Amino acid sequence: MSGPVLTFLCALICFSCAEKLGAASPPNIIIMLMDDMGWGDLGVLGQPSKETPNLDAMAAQGMLFPNFYTANPLCSPSRAALLTGRLPVRNGFYTTNGHARNAYTPQEIVGGISRDEILLPQILKKKGYISKIVGKWHLGHRAQYLPLKNGFHQWFGAPNCHFGPYNNSGRPNVPVYNNSEMVGRYYEEFQIDRKTGESNLTQIYLQEGLDFINGQRLAQQPFFLYWAADATHAPVYASRRFLGKSQRGRYGDAVMELDYSVGQILSRLRTLGIENSTFVFFTSDNGAALTSGPSESGSNGPFLCGKETTYEGGMREPAIAWWPGHITAGKVNFQLSSVMDLFTTSLSLAGISPPDDRALDGLDLTPVFLNSPHTLQNRPIFYYRGNELMAVRLGQYKAHYWTWTNSLDELKKGVNFCPGQEVPGVTTHEQKEHTMQPLIFHLGRDPGEKFPISVLTEEYQDVLSRISPVVDHHKKTLVAGIPQLNMCDVAVMNWAPAGCEKLGKCLKVPESSPWKCEWPH
Amino acid sequence: MSGPVLTFLCALICFSCAEKLGAASPPNIIIMLMDDMGWGDLGVLGQPSKETPNLDAMAAQGMLFPNFYTANPLCSPSRAALLTGRLPVRNGFYTTNGHARNAYTPQEIVGGISRDEILLPQILKKKGYISKIVGKWHLGHRAQYLPLKNGFHQWFGAPNCHFGPYNNSGRPNVPVYNNSEMVGRYYEEFQIDRKTGESNLTQIYLQEGLDFINGQRLAQQPFFLYWAADATHAPVYASRRFLGKSQRGRYGDAVMELDYSVGQILSRLRTLGIENSTFVFFTSDNGAALTSGPSESGSNGPFLCGKETTYEGGMREPAIAWWPGHITAGKVNFQLSSVMDLFTTSLSLAGISPPDDRALDGLDLTPVFLNSPHTLQNRPIFYYRGNELMAVRLGQYKAHYWTWTNSLDELKKGVNFCPGQEVPGVTTHEQKEHTMQPLIFHLGRDPGEKFPISVLTEEYQDVLSRISPVVDHHKKTLVAGIPQLNMCDVAVMNWAPAGCEKLGKCLKVPESSPWKCEWPH
Repeated sequence: MSGPVLTFLCALICFSCAEKLGAASPPNIIIMLMDDMGWGDLGVLGQPSKETPNLDAMAAQGMLFPNFYTANPLCSPSRAALLTGRLPVRNGFYTTNGHARNAYTPQEIVGGISRDEILLPQILKKKGYISKIVGKWHLGHRAQYLPLKNGFHQWFGAPNCHFGPYNNSGRPNVPVYNNSEMVGRYYEEFQIDRKTGESNLTQIYLQEGLDFINGQRLAQQPFFLYWAADATHAPVYASRRFLGKSQRGRYGDAVMELDYSVGQILSRLRTLGIENSTFVFFTSDNGAALTSGPSESGSNGPFLCGKETTYEGGMREPAIAWWPGHITAGKVNFQLSSVMDLFTTSLSLAGISPPDDRALDGLDLTPVFLNSPHTLQNRPIFYYRGNELMAVRLGQYKAHYWTWTNSLDELKKGVNFCPGQEVPGVTTHEQKEHTMQPLIFHLGRDPGEKFPISVLTEEYQDVLSRISPVVDHHKKTLVAGIPQLNMCDVAVMNWAPAGCEKLGKCLKVPESSPWKCEWPH
Repeated sequence: MSGPVLTFLCALICFSCAEKLGAASPPNIIIMLMDDMGWGDLGVLGQPSKETPNLDAMAAQGMLFPNFYTANPLCSPSRAALLTGRLPVRNGFYTTNGHARNAYTPQEIVGGISRDEILLPQILKKKGYISKIVGKWHLGHRAQYLPLKNGFHQWFGAPNCHFGPYNNSGRPNVPVYNNSEMVGRYYEEFQIDRKTGESNLTQIYLQEGLDFINGQRLAQQPFFLYWAADATHAPVYASRRFLGKSQRGRYGDAVMELDYSVGQILSRLRTLGIENSTFVFFTSDNGAALTSGPSESGSNGPFLCGKETTYEGGMREPAIAWWPGHITAGKVNFQLSSVMDLFTTSLSLAGISPPDDRALDGLDLTPVFLNSPHTLQNRPIFYYRGNELMAVRLGQYKAHYWTWTNSLDELKKGVNFCPGQEVPGVTTHEQKEHTMQPLIFHLGRDPGEKFPISVLTEEYQDVLSRISPVVDHHKKTLVAGIPQLNMCDVAVMNWAPAGCEKLGKCLKVPESSPWKCEWPH
């Protein structure tokens, strides 16, 4: 009998003796973070093919948040914000190499998550939580930045995106880690067939998640599982069982497999009898990457543009909270909420006070979804791109202080963040400043940001008079972190990750030659 | 005690003696047809404000058809197609005054539904059905074209759109009929406050529908109710109770009131115990009228453009079938289906053979939703604009043979059917022919019609080889009807509708001076 199966059976047997985790115990926490999945990719949020039965059921049993935002329209800063509860401009996940640039953690990035930041698993540890990340890390891949150095007890996954394959000369293939040592590389031990899109990685990540849950159930220790599968990020992949099954092509196949996996995880919680003591949240790191074209990108539903932009399509995310017996089933909650709230909310669920030595951007959402779902908290959403506050949402209104899609040069190269969409003066190809007279939209009447409210109206002046002080206060009190995403160097790539010796997979490290990273968007 | 209340109570009392309507009896039929409501206006189809709890519940209890189409992107032809089961180009609801023009029935239209057409209520009558239309007719307003001359036993509503107010000199206000006589006019006896948007018309239409249902239940006669409320057509209106309640502005208020009304009607069926013997279908006449701007138009979700166009936003409709005990709850059915199927399906439900002396475009959907929801029928969808076949869908593929939004002249006047959307070579402002090399899209991967499939691919050639014979066959066998929407005349306006004498509301009829109507789009 294999280890995981044995563990699972033990867990089943131990049901009756494990009822200690009552209402008073802090719940387990599972955050499922998708990669480049768009708001409009879920059936319950209007994807016409309606191929997410498990997520739709999760919403029907839980609470849907249609006004949930990421902290940045790109993966690394978004993930850093989730784990620190702070805007990237505070936690250092941004660049000052250019104005309003999206930066992330490619293999040549020198920086990573600052040691001055406090990550969610580091605090949860104090209350006895065991934390595991499954999937994509993306908070820096040099040794000191990896998950086990930053609060996680366990990790199975990769530090960077699964781009490739590379020939390991100019650029190494990205390693896959099991805890603190690599166990192979993408396109080598962990195959992704670029031609067919076949890869069993989601199945591996699912099994890693399920095994962790089983193990923690058996050990009767509260756990934090950060399940960060990356199948919907280009190059998009799915396992053979799902390939060709979607009406939506390969991207849809990947969504179907992730949806299936979500269903398996929730089902396992029920089987183990811990559904009432496990808080689960599903969301995505940024909007669908429309520039990846029809077969490798998702849908942002009725929203404007996508990943890399601060329009709704770039930052509004699918979001479902699920906690049977605690969260009333089938509710929709219109609270303006953010991936950074998951930090504060998780601490609240664990009964831990948040750090008081730093500014936090996350709200505690527990009052919203546990007690009074109709009492919304009036809070702004800040839309940053790199070092610039591009836009602010307050209530139904959103004010754009800067607009930019990308440069005409990039557009000519085929990089288009808003294919088929063009709102004059809004989806600009130059960085356009509107701070003296922001573009204001009513997102209820006009979720697609197509009809700026006339500056001559009373409505515009009223909104401006309410948003301006919020922006002024934010800017005046903001203490920006030291930017971590400024320097690049081929020497820091994943040439010789820990564990490479055992596998005979160490590559020669080239000489260091750092440069200021270029961030064209 | 008022009439309706008495009727209602009697109906309740008569429950036990009225169980004759068993499975063998033909069911009552209710078709709820909205006006300019878009695919994306329902919560269950992704409207971010999720303000349609009754429609969402209807879908959860019934069957959702995400691939349901109207027959034309404009109201009159769409409605004529519903009631005849035939494409407008066959039933005469089109114009030959220009190429590919959208035509409808404004007050100056001379024509209307041809006496050679057979309308649904005319056939249902043979099986003892009593038919009522509540709301907008739009199949011609001259005496011979009105509902009671075309198979309906009862009518409460208006023959034309609720444009206005007019001063009754150059143009009369549109009459509201009760059966064969007018009972007032819009903006006079039936107020719509253009400033506030307040009107209690939806409440009146709701009550008319409920009273009819009660009456038929009492009389134990099968009925056909065609409930065609128009609150979501500009000028958009709602009653005081709903005004200001939506997150979406006035349009959302109207949707909320319609959603409430749908809930009331379904609830009444349950109260009367006839939910198992009443087939209900909800849909809309064409896509959201995006040109009406953010406060007076709805959402077409992820689809391209809207009303007046043959892109998905113009013709794909929200569609829900509901029939407890017969249609399995909560299913999604991907059958390519059409408003014309409602004709054929209704006849099938009533146990009547469809007319065999003419071409019908409607399918009988009963096998799809009653017996084998997974056995889809392979049938094309034809997208017409006036006298031109603009596009064809077969399976997931759609081929555009002609593209056009509207002319640059109209665009300069502010008429924009695709605000904020621009797909080069697709959303053209000239009538562009592609018949030698149609633009082909895969609507599963690319529901927004943004990425035409390259003609150089095997996929393109394969699709073309399958679609071409379908188009050829259609064109070769098509017998176009005599166009009814070519001639206009101020003399035919609603100056002196039947019943005007009793009300003292007859207006002087100007001299006849017919002209060829101009259809700019």
